[in-house]
Amino acid sequence: MSGGKLEECRQHVRSQLDNVVNFWLKHSHDNVHGGFFTCIGREGQVYDELKYVWLQGRQVWMYCRLYRTVDRFRRPEILQAATAGGAFLRKFARVSSSSGRWKCAFCLTRDGKAVKVQRSIFSECFYVLALDELSRVTGDQDMQLEAEQMMQQLVHWVRVDPSGLGRPQLPGDVPTSSMAVPMMLLCLVQQLSEGRDGGGGVQSYRELGRWCVQQIVQHVQRDGSAVLENVSVDGGELPGCLGRLQNPGHALEAGWFLLQYGAQWGDEDLQTTAINKFVELPYERGWDEEHGGLFYFLDVDGFCPTQLEWSMKLWWPHCEALIALLMAYRHSRRSELLQRFFQVYEYTFSHFPDAQSGEWFGYLTQEGKVALDFKGGPFKGFFHVPRCLYMCERILDDLLTNKT
Amino acid sequence: MSGGKLEECRQHVRSQLDNVVNFWLKHSHDNVHGGFFTCIGREGQVYDELKYVWLQGRQVWMYCRLYRTVDRFRRPEILQAATAGGAFLRKFARVSSSSGRWKCAFCLTRDGKAVKVQRSIFSECFYVLALDELSRVTGDQDMQLEAEQMMQQLVHWVRVDPSGLGRPQLPGDVPTSSMAVPMMLLCLVQQLSEGRDGGGGVQSYRELGRWCVQQIVQHVQRDGSAVLENVSVDGGELPGCLGRLQNPGHALEAGWFLLQYGAQWGDEDLQTTAINKFVELPYERGWDEEHGGLFYFLDVDGFCPTQLEWSMKLWWPHCEALIALLMAYRHSRRSELLQRFFQVYEYTFSHFPDAQSGEWFGYLTQEGKVALDFKGGPFKGFFHVPRCLYMCERILDDLLTNKT
Repeated sequence: MSGGKLEECRQHVRSQLDNVVNFWLKHSHDNVHGGFFTCIGREGQVYDELKYVWLQGRQVWMYCRLYRTVDRFRRPEILQAATAGGAFLRKFARVSSSSGRWKCAFCLTRDGKAVKVQRSIFSECFYVLALDELSRVTGDQDMQLEAEQMMQQLVHWVRVDPSGLGRPQLPGDVPTSSMAVPMMLLCLVQQLSEGRDGGGGVQSYRELGRWCVQQIVQHVQRDGSAVLENVSVDGGELPGCLGRLQNPGHALEAGWFLLQYGAQWGDEDLQTTAINKFVELPYERGWDEEHGGLFYFLDVDGFCPTQLEWSMKLWWPHCEALIALLMAYRHSRRSELLQRFFQVYEYTFSHFPDAQSGEWFGYLTQEGKVALDFKGGPFKGFFHVPRCLYMCERILDDLLTNKT
Repeated sequence: MSGGKLEECRQHVRSQLDNVVNFWLKHSHDNVHGGFFTCIGREGQVYDELKYVWLQGRQVWMYCRLYRTVDRFRRPEILQAATAGGAFLRKFARVSSSSGRWKCAFCLTRDGKAVKVQRSIFSECFYVLALDELSRVTGDQDMQLEAEQMMQQLVHWVRVDPSGLGRPQLPGDVPTSSMAVPMMLLCLVQQLSEGRDGGGGVQSYRELGRWCVQQIVQHVQRDGSAVLENVSVDGGELPGCLGRLQNPGHALEAGWFLLQYGAQWGDEDLQTTAINKFVELPYERGWDEEHGGLFYFLDVDGFCPTQLEWSMKLWWPHCEALIALLMAYRHSRRSELLQRFFQVYEYTFSHFPDAQSGEWFGYLTQEGKVALDFKGGPFKGFFHVPRCLYMCERILDDLLTNKT
């Protein structure tokens, strides 16, 4: 069905991906100190020279993934930029500290001095993602080993002892399972084990992958009617705003991670859960019937979230929704999933891309007006937009090749 | 001039203050564990039981200040609530830690267990504010001593050695003078020295007060054309978004702190600087000509701020603007300052108060629509609104008594 429309989508997504890659190739490279500028204004100007480590790692990963898997991006300038970004990360991202030698900074000066360290695992996660994908392109064994070692440290922080992250232990700070953690680890499990069958490391990733899935699925609460962002360590509901928080974009992202994992291991039940609970539910809960688009945060009991940006429409939940809905349709071939994909597609492409200066705006008001006009900032880099376009292009290739 | 209009304002401000005090007396008291609920929904329901220490301290201070200085609030229930709040703070707010015994939590469970500690000084500042004002009402000398001792610790952290706050020293983290710090200390200097002439402690507060003023005035940059929120320790401009940030509400609040301090010491130059640079400039820079109201954040070079809420209209900058403009008018009797007061007054009272359920909304979109409908949240408690109404009532009393 809809072959003509899908073909139109594929052409559009391809050209958008080319546009976005060109924007970052042109504006984000620091040819003096290495690494990438990530604070990029509407027309491409650098409005702050700080280098955010999440975004350095993500850009290295995305360049390498495009280089490795898409013929038209197998270009020397892309590999060169990724290699320079990887060298910058390895030289500067890790900060020596009393708690060990694996903690990474959150943010660096242009010349690589640490400005800020977060007491969480995400800088390190994107460091692993970057180094593993880069090592696949360059064949650098040392780099792959470093990624594996940091992964061991990450798993230790999450499953054994978080004290090295530097958060003080407080009596009222109940241990919480935030969906971000098992999602990110599942993403890394899939990154590190792709194409590497057998071996001790891969075996331990199988166990870790199962644990991540179990942890993620615990976030389905309220008799299966909602995905909550934070639950207790044993899968119970937490009190207050923290416990009632829903993040539809995050749940949708988890949905396609679970779909991929379920497909890899032939787990049909998991794929069904992924579609019903992590794709359809968050879409239904999160879609703004009045103005269109997905809310950023919602309270499951209908209270007003305390996050000031709760009603804003951000680029990345829409990116994740496009991937999740299209992947869910590819698996199930249920037409309502394709209809929802088209609904999100229409909203996304009529609101986020900047026809004037390229790339996408990231932050809209609830009504769909551009609220912040930069193309890159502390949390928006070369990642969600190109990953969405890349994934959608691949799924559309599949759908158009294997029409039912 | 405008006697009739000023009298109308005074009546309105008085009735608003009564309304707001009644709202918090009715909905925020925890009669089981002590202290105050601060997450209060539109109709007064408690939607989260966490107790934020900033807001506990501010509520104790505000109750006591009203009790001590306004006849109609000299009521037992207000003193009783303040005393209970003070007891809760003293029992639970301070967390024992390796770096000393003065660090306070940012947030507590309903029964007083520490949930989160910030690596800044503000929980401690509001603790001092609360205990000093409460000790003035109750005559508790131990309590006043505790406030003085914590103040010494605060000054040590700010002026001698910040390591006890727990922030790691990082090579790229350039020491920054954030306007919040000297502003808050100046507020505490005025609190602790009010009515206490002479004595060693008060002498040291005179020196500290002068230091705070000098630090605040350093934030006037760009040849006197802008107040920047963050500057270097020696008063130079910082690079990037951090250095270009303007927070008009904060500058206006500093404005009336400086006006008060200048009046106390008979410093005419300081009062002129306060009006020209900290009242008029931020008002002119911060006022939204299109939709009315004051922006939350602005970039001095016109880049888009990276704070997602930069264009929202928050209650507290409007509260601070009302106090600052009216106080500036009282001092200078310049009619344009009164006109600006009326402009902010019209916007504020037509947008923020909730005629249906009492108290004020805190967060509007740029266009003036209510974006978050709660009356209390992690950063909005019983403080800016009643302090504004209380200060404006007093200044209006002065103006109507001493007509020119």
